[in-house]
Amino acid sequence: MGTKKAPRRTAERILESSLALFNRFGEPGVSTNAISVELNISPGNLYYHFPAKDDLINALFVQYEQALQPILQASDGVTNVEDAWFFIHSVLEVNWQYRFIYRNLNELLSRNRQLETGVRQTLEDLTQSLLRLLNTMQKNAALNAPPVGWDSVARSMVLLLVFWLSYEYALDPRNALEEDNAQNAAMRNAAHVLGLLAPYAVADQQAHLQRLIDAYASQAKTETAVA
Amino acid sequence: MGTKKAPRRTAERILESSLALFNRFGEPGVSTNAISVELNISPGNLYYHFPAKDDLINALFVQYEQALQPILQASDGVTNVEDAWFFIHSVLEVNWQYRFIYRNLNELLSRNRQLETGVRQTLEDLTQSLLRLLNTMQKNAALNAPPVGWDSVARSMVLLLVFWLSYEYALDPRNALEEDNAQNAAMRNAAHVLGLLAPYAVADQQAHLQRLIDAYASQAKTETAVA
Repeated sequence: MGTKKAPRRTAERILESSLALFNRFGEPGVSTNAISVELNISPGNLYYHFPAKDDLINALFVQYEQALQPILQASDGVTNVEDAWFFIHSVLEVNWQYRFIYRNLNELLSRNRQLETGVRQTLEDLTQSLLRLLNTMQKNAALNAPPVGWDSVARSMVLLLVFWLSYEYALDPRNALEEDNAQNAAMRNAAHVLGLLAPYAVADQQAHLQRLIDAYASQAKTETAVA
Repeated sequence: MGTKKAPRRTAERILESSLALFNRFGEPGVSTNAISVELNISPGNLYYHFPAKDDLINALFVQYEQALQPILQASDGVTNVEDAWFFIHSVLEVNWQYRFIYRNLNELLSRNRQLETGVRQTLEDLTQSLLRLLNTMQKNAALNAPPVGWDSVARSMVLLLVFWLSYEYALDPRNALEEDNAQNAAMRNAAHVLGLLAPYAVADQQAHLQRLIDAYASQAKTETAVA
């Protein structure tokens, strides 16, 4: 039994280390050699599990999808601002865990055909999931109908969800993607994405949204004061 | 006189070709050697004008800034939806002309310190320019005040303006950045960015905005039918 399990454990360890290194240094900056050194295994052993770097990337993308899909599928249970906050925050947390994908997205897409198809599908799934969320909130009288339809709002939300990290990176390349920044970044961006719903929220939901945004702002202030 | 002008003309030609190649293939995919081959000049001649690839990139970034700043400075003259459409469209056109910058933004930023400072300043200038635009439109009774302030709206607009190309690239890597797509992409994204203002627009401005968005949609349809 033990010998049967060993290869699977090695593959898992390789994926874990790769993810950490890709997130930390960006995928282009991490060679398969660096990964085997980090794990203290031979390059041949790594090659046995993942013959090419893109196999590693594709396996990590499958993990990302497996973490994201259950969240996306729950979007038609989101009836109010509180649920929406939790939903957005959950998506942002998964995006953060696999942030190397969006950090060098265009470059990865230009050379990896599996990712090209996979990312397009993810963006489409995210859009559809948000459309269900917006329609459910409207049906539950949490949101008023927008003047130009939900499609444009959903697409803007997708764009913010996917590129907020690139935006923060552009503003502060040395710190934006460091592990310490995770919780605060997810909160800040959840507040920002939900800000798109502010003009459509009915009065009590708008008040609730404002409390959530204020709560984030005061927490961020405390953290700055401590740091 | 002629001999004095020659070097300047060469530098200009180098910049023009570099920009076209960077836009077409992405900056990481274009070597300085490829640029000298394209121009039919010696690598030494290229090196004489631009000793390093980053010198080329920095000179192009200066050109980008020179094209963008006059537009940004005119934002406090934007009093209605029609002007806002023109303003957004102008910003998007300049971003399109220098699209290589945003195509591999994170990678360029991680190795080029001048760009690190420059891009942060551009994003800040863009945000301030949009805040002036939003306040001017509100002062001119084209927009109602938003429930959570203009800051969040302006930031979302900046994010869309800067990353719409990356988003389109992720949806369609083979065609999104091709020259043919320029006019249609700028129109589609102007409609999308202005969509963020829809809930705040006063009645007649909202109707005008809807006409602009519809006009774009019908034009896009015709183009699809022709193609």
